[in-house]
Amino acid sequence: MMTSSFFPPQRTLMGPGPSDVSPRVLGALSRPTIGHLDPLFVQLMDEIKELLQYAFQTENALTLPISAPGSAGMEACFVNLVSPGDTVIVCQNGVFGGRMKENVERCGGTAVMVEDAWGEPVSTDKVRAAFAEHPQASLLAFVHAETSTGVRSDAQALCALARENGALSIVDAVTSLAGIEVKVDAWGADAVYSGTQKCLSCIPGISPVTFSQRAVERIQNRSHKVQSWFLDMQLVMGYWGGSAKRAYHHTAPVNDLYALHESLVMLQEEGLEAAFARHLRNHRALVAGLEAMGLSMAVAAEHRLPQLNAVNIPAGVDDGAVRAALLNDYDLEIGAGLGALAGKTWRIGLMGSASTERNVVYCLTALEAVLSRQGASIKKGAALDAASAVFSA
Amino acid sequence: MMTSSFFPPQRTLMGPGPSDVSPRVLGALSRPTIGHLDPLFVQLMDEIKELLQYAFQTENALTLPISAPGSAGMEACFVNLVSPGDTVIVCQNGVFGGRMKENVERCGGTAVMVEDAWGEPVSTDKVRAAFAEHPQASLLAFVHAETSTGVRSDAQALCALARENGALSIVDAVTSLAGIEVKVDAWGADAVYSGTQKCLSCIPGISPVTFSQRAVERIQNRSHKVQSWFLDMQLVMGYWGGSAKRAYHHTAPVNDLYALHESLVMLQEEGLEAAFARHLRNHRALVAGLEAMGLSMAVAAEHRLPQLNAVNIPAGVDDGAVRAALLNDYDLEIGAGLGALAGKTWRIGLMGSASTERNVVYCLTALEAVLSRQGASIKKGAALDAASAVFSA
Repeated sequence: MMTSSFFPPQRTLMGPGPSDVSPRVLGALSRPTIGHLDPLFVQLMDEIKELLQYAFQTENALTLPISAPGSAGMEACFVNLVSPGDTVIVCQNGVFGGRMKENVERCGGTAVMVEDAWGEPVSTDKVRAAFAEHPQASLLAFVHAETSTGVRSDAQALCALARENGALSIVDAVTSLAGIEVKVDAWGADAVYSGTQKCLSCIPGISPVTFSQRAVERIQNRSHKVQSWFLDMQLVMGYWGGSAKRAYHHTAPVNDLYALHESLVMLQEEGLEAAFARHLRNHRALVAGLEAMGLSMAVAAEHRLPQLNAVNIPAGVDDGAVRAALLNDYDLEIGAGLGALAGKTWRIGLMGSASTERNVVYCLTALEAVLSRQGASIKKGAALDAASAVFSA
Repeated sequence: MMTSSFFPPQRTLMGPGPSDVSPRVLGALSRPTIGHLDPLFVQLMDEIKELLQYAFQTENALTLPISAPGSAGMEACFVNLVSPGDTVIVCQNGVFGGRMKENVERCGGTAVMVEDAWGEPVSTDKVRAAFAEHPQASLLAFVHAETSTGVRSDAQALCALARENGALSIVDAVTSLAGIEVKVDAWGADAVYSGTQKCLSCIPGISPVTFSQRAVERIQNRSHKVQSWFLDMQLVMGYWGGSAKRAYHHTAPVNDLYALHESLVMLQEEGLEAAFARHLRNHRALVAGLEAMGLSMAVAAEHRLPQLNAVNIPAGVDDGAVRAALLNDYDLEIGAGLGALAGKTWRIGLMGSASTERNVVYCLTALEAVLSRQGASIKKGAALDAASAVFSA
């Protein structure tokens, strides 16, 4: 039987990512493919590096997109910086800290876990205590913006703790980059990875990373070869590096990089500060609307991520039925809870191009309609006024 | 300084890949992004698996696209099938055998190298001798279609040798898939990886792989965890597998998979046999034209890949100047020689959508013009007639 071409519906993507990709980025994506060693492509690579330096607020020379999703960006940081026998302090306050532990162990390292409740930020006191107990720790790894819970941790304080203890820091900025401040140089962060499908509003599949000079030195001084050939930064550097003659390493995902370039050009046009302010304003409006409807947020106000809003599912409401109705009747995707929060929270993303007044209004309208139909006890007719009050403030 | 949007030229891609991507595939690529857990996306994933089974001529359940380039597909095969202490027979007759050796060693295995000259196929006699000398070898790894030299090796015979010796086989089919026969089940191949940017004529960045039941059993019986979390097939299976409930592993490259799906639909529409015949006919026409011009092929006729034609660079001709003129004056990309063949050969691809009569004619015309301008001693005016004779035969 012959298979037909696939024509996806036009969803509104307000889950934990991918977020809505703008027509401008989709247009760039589908431009004619050129060779990955074409001189014009090499220029494009240089521009992407500079634009990523802007997004990461860094002058790190080793700043580039890994040709694979954020999980591979995470792995690139660990396999290059962990050697067998190393002790790594790993902070876990959601799904992704657990994945970091897996990475450390698969590199032959020992993970010292610092655990905080899902929905809480990483405790700097616990991290300080972990360094006191494990002074040999060579790395501190944590998630800046926990995609599974919608919580922001204090990256600046955590990077400083790593430095004070002679350790390098690995920072997961998958959901934070371009949505809230990610100040790589000001924080003194050493290895930071992100993803394209969150606040950059680019297609999923690429992972921007940046490494400090200290991290580069540790990589260059390794005695063990990096266990991954594909993610070995010494080899990747040879292709992306500044030298005139680039060494072939792998075939770059040419069209995906057109799209990343365009999304970064758009970020530069808007400006980081304006992008952060937009994310914050839309977040406040969404929260005002949700609370006016009688719903409650899962994360304390001071730790909330503006780009990912965890909402408590009201008692008696069928989680799956609500999300299915939003998807089927409104083409609106919101995220389910993950792990310990499955069935307890929804995750509403306002990321990148999807962080708009229109989407705030659309989401509140659709959610109110679906919850009403499901017989949930919510307050009707108040959400949009509450959101509007924020927009017009 | 603000960076501008990037508008690539319309090249004709006749190098070793990426090859020309058809407008149909680029159109699919830029359709609206949907969520990676969207029920419609899950259906798309199922269709891609079936279409890849068709392309690989296999019923292997574990057949799917790795979310990263061919180099990562290679690594996925090695990290899942090699355990520390394993002996692996690795055949090297070009660049990619050397990369396989790196993979084995980074997995803690020992690579027994079987070396053949660049431009020659893998010698089955040497492989037989290697198994006799290393009966404990648990894997045989070889490249079916060497992208660096344009040589085809006898995959059927090599897979049979592996089976006879109780070993599994890892087959690099990056350049072969959809250009020449890749009969995974008929050969009894155990782990086969490919790339999207060669004869599938899809954008670069994704690596189709397939694993036999024997390979799956070896993966399930591992005592060491796979060193890569991102490429651990037991985890990847949980997301791509047949079970009703898919476990989140990583965010799939949604749009890239739209494109892969479309390129596979196009392959199914044309039919494998017709695609192979087209590649062969255009290859014969190109060779006839090149030889009529007075150029010579670098590989013996019986070992040539129709999709990648290695041509000897005539004495006294400036390799780089010719390729630059083709690119700048004709927007035509052909490939340089790699490694031992740098400066000695060109690699002219006729892959997937780029394998057309028009491209054969265009390449012959452009090459003749540029070589004439460079003062090369070629025979003028004979190439197109020679090619036409093949087309009209």
